[in-house]
Amino acid sequence: MLKLLVIGIGAGNPEHMTVQAIKALNRADIVLLPRKGSAKEDLAELRREICRRFLENGNTRIVEFDLPQRDGSETYLKSVDDWHGAIAATYRDLLAREVPGGGTAAFLVWGDPSLYDSTLRILDRLRTTHSMEFALEVIPGITSVQALAASHAMPLNTVGNPVLVTTGRKLKDAPPDAADTIVVMLDGDMSFRHVAQDAYDIFWGAYLGLEQEMIVAGDLAEKSGEIEAKRTAARDENGWIMDVYVLRRKGGKPSG
Amino acid sequence: MLKLLVIGIGAGNPEHMTVQAIKALNRADIVLLPRKGSAKEDLAELRREICRRFLENGNTRIVEFDLPQRDGSETYLKSVDDWHGAIAATYRDLLAREVPGGGTAAFLVWGDPSLYDSTLRILDRLRTTHSMEFALEVIPGITSVQALAASHAMPLNTVGNPVLVTTGRKLKDAPPDAADTIVVMLDGDMSFRHVAQDAYDIFWGAYLGLEQEMIVAGDLAEKSGEIEAKRTAARDENGWIMDVYVLRRKGGKPSG
Ligand SMILES: C[S@@+](CC[C@H](N)C(=O)[O-])C[C@H]1O[C@@H](n2cnc3c(N)ncnc32)[C@H](O)[C@@H]1O
Ligand SMILES: C[S@@+](CC[C@H](N)C(=O)[O-])C[C@H]1O[C@@H](n2cnc3c(N)ncnc32)[C@H](O)[C@@H]1O
Repeated sequence: MLKLLVIGIGAGNPEHMTVQAIKALNRADIVLLPRKGSAKEDLAELRREICRRFLENGNTRIVEFDLPQRDGSETYLKSVDDWHGAIAATYRDLLAREVPGGGTAAFLVWGDPSLYDSTLRILDRLRTTHSMEFALEVIPGITSVQALAASHAMPLNTVGNPVLVTTGRKLKDAPPDAADTIVVMLDGDMSFRHVAQDAYDIFWGAYLGLEQEMIVAGDLAEKSGEIEAKRTAARDENGWIMDVYVLRRKGGKPSG
Repeated sequence: MLKLLVIGIGAGNPEHMTVQAIKALNRADIVLLPRKGSAKEDLAELRREICRRFLENGNTRIVEFDLPQRDGSETYLKSVDDWHGAIAATYRDLLAREVPGGGTAAFLVWGDPSLYDSTLRILDRLRTTHSMEFALEVIPGITSVQALAASHAMPLNTVGNPVLVTTGRKLKDAPPDAADTIVVMLDGDMSFRHVAQDAYDIFWGAYLGLEQEMIVAGDLAEKSGEIEAKRTAARDENGWIMDVYVLRRKGGKPSG
């Protein structure tokens, strides 16, 4: 019987690992570690460090592999769909080669597996497209949203009020009355520049939990330029960046 | 110098504790443990279990105390405000008594400290109302939202789309176009009964991570009655319940 473990490893600090995640890691026969392009080498390295620090089961094998790259030439959804299909085929081949008679394979997922991560959807294709049978267990992880709030020592929601979590791409579609707190992830374009600068405070963080961690908080109109400069310089220096932020509507007195 | 650690302990499973949280716990001179009313005795017990399992520093003292109760006779926001004021005064007195010359005090917060939890807001009053000075460090924790998604082995968002996190009380105010995924917390009233039953799938979970964990998933129109019956029976049996759920709009084809 094949068992797949999808383990949330937290958002950058290896000490985000939970006791449950460490135990799950040590139950695996193989741990699948994607080698990313050089820009993401730091992230691949973090996964290796997690294995070095927390893997004590001498029988567990680490299997590094190359992830297929996404084809940027098509529409967003079509290219994502093709890409997921290619990754599913890679997983199928890896599992057939590495645990041919069944066993337990672990996937280490950045942050929490439920949040803007495609691993679960891709594994679903092993069932639907490839007719594979397996048991699936998901171990939750600290998300970058939690890491951001912790670094700012801030509550995410205002008292009793909702929070909208969205992407840079979708920020412009957020209905103004949906929530006084908006979390923006996956924003390659500093979309905070395109909302009403007077209306929000911003709580921004990049490389959370990593050595390079930086945070900025304050009035959006005041901080927008500073964040833009810091973000651009840091991305140039590191070759990559991951950032996440909260926009909090000002003077939004909680209703109800 | 006084240092306050606000430590997310996860949402029910003691193994949600992160390495970072365990280390923080062991840095504390005192750990403040609220005794709750009998209904929440299980929750106080979980905090004690976490200390038993993970606290190895023989010099750390556990200080149990009674939390002031909320006065239900006023409007929601006014009574919350008074209640927070009373808790802040309790903390001030406890800290003055237990770490009079300064030191490190830890607060163990259910789930993650940023999500529908008032500890950070209350500690802020120590600064504003009580003119206390202290350093503050927040350690993120696994939220009940992550625990729910993990138990259902499901992604929270649909591909590239937003997620609205709200409360039972505010569910009716959620703009229909805000998100095709709505997470509902703090719902004492099974508010899922008041949304269009045909329009959603539901992924429900109660006592997540605890012995009594139960989950139900499926078409809302079909499962609504089952959840209502299970929830009512479980609450009667245990004397308390905590539940959280995702409403996923059906046929919501992702845009963009
Ligand atoms: C593909 S999503 C994965 C999110 C992840 N599953 C989680 O739970 O945080 C990647 C996005 O998460 C955010 N992110 C993840 N890790 C981060 C970090 N260490 N610092 C800042 N942002 C981070 C960024 O917005 C990034 O674009
Ligand atoms: C005051 S809020 C605190 C949330 C917490 N800070 C977190 O990160 O999950 C309490 C609400 O969280 C949800 N909740 C917390 N723990 C839960 C559990 N173990 N099972 C189900 N729901 C839970 C319920 O919706 C409950 O009404």
